[in-house]
Amino acid sequence: MKRFAVVGHLARTAGDFSLNDLPGSAGRMDVLCRCVNAAFFLSHDLRRDVACYLVLCGEPDPPKTLLFRGAELRYLSPDERSAGSLIKKALSIPCGAEFRESTPGVYVRRGDLARVLAEHPFAVLDEAGTDVRHAPALPDACLLSDHLNFTPEETALVGQLPRYSVGPRPLHADHVITLLLNEMDRRESGWS
Amino acid sequence: MKRFAVVGHLARTAGDFSLNDLPGSAGRMDVLCRCVNAAFFLSHDLRRDVACYLVLCGEPDPPKTLLFRGAELRYLSPDERSAGSLIKKALSIPCGAEFRESTPGVYVRRGDLARVLAEHPFAVLDEAGTDVRHAPALPDACLLSDHLNFTPEETALVGQLPRYSVGPRPLHADHVITLLLNEMDRRESGWS
Repeated sequence: MKRFAVVGHLARTAGDFSLNDLPGSAGRMDVLCRCVNAAFFLSHDLRRDVACYLVLCGEPDPPKTLLFRGAELRYLSPDERSAGSLIKKALSIPCGAEFRESTPGVYVRRGDLARVLAEHPFAVLDEAGTDVRHAPALPDACLLSDHLNFTPEETALVGQLPRYSVGPRPLHADHVITLLLNEMDRRESGWS
Repeated sequence: MKRFAVVGHLARTAGDFSLNDLPGSAGRMDVLCRCVNAAFFLSHDLRRDVACYLVLCGEPDPPKTLLFRGAELRYLSPDERSAGSLIKKALSIPCGAEFRESTPGVYVRRGDLARVLAEHPFAVLDEAGTDVRHAPALPDACLLSDHLNFTPEETALVGQLPRYSVGPRPLHADHVITLLLNEMDRRESGWS
């Protein structure tokens, strides 16, 4: 299983946002929607071996964590609005400490980044990390931030995690996911 | 200058579509919006050395070609709706055979794929092509298709062009652009 986690620092934690304003009132939810796209979409297919966590830290009810499981996922189309709609539905149901399914393959719970990091051995994708092309092995679980840097509290949490880089330029989180999955695809297919 | 051209086989050629329905009534315009995002966005910056052509072949007035020039581009945000809004504005002004600017850095003209291909030495991104990681040189101009394969007429036009591949799996056009730009970034920065 390949796992990604993305922190949405301002991402709304209620389903009351408009799908017409994902960048604004939804707290840059568009960034997270593009990460979902990058994590799952192949041409005319879905990556069934991927799970994607979205850690939402915005108002009014933070923190919440969403989980998209590729093996079970349905009703996801590539456009941002489609992922946004599934997120909105997940944030519209009552949730507790354990994951509850909102639509097939989409789950929601109360919980923060520390809890996600405690569940799997995450690495951080960071421009200063080891080049993924030269890493002897690739991490199974990767953490990224949205358009904002990690907070001091998050930095303290992730400071000791291994760090990997996909290239020389600072990129959007969804582009980083695409690049890492390509490196994984190449290794699995015997492309050097 | 790095150039990309993407064919939108069903993409609407009038500005009368709804930004709330880019995949549907706009003819999978969402695919083209994501290609614009991938072609231009760095983290907190735009790639000024990129130009992106969108060849729109859908009703009611095909073919039209849009051109996004990174050096001049303004008012573009990363979300699909932002690119969709600039496309809608470009398709809402009268246009003739030569490019006319609709908003800063966005141009529109009547014209088809053959004309774009005649203006620059394009290569095709195709799963069966040369692996970009092993190509001695990368193409300056790259052609991609949207969610549909090239038509027989397009295939005849592009049949003799050089072909490059970014990896072993069939991917969405925007993911392919991200991967090719990463290879270019690496070469320009001396990353192997």
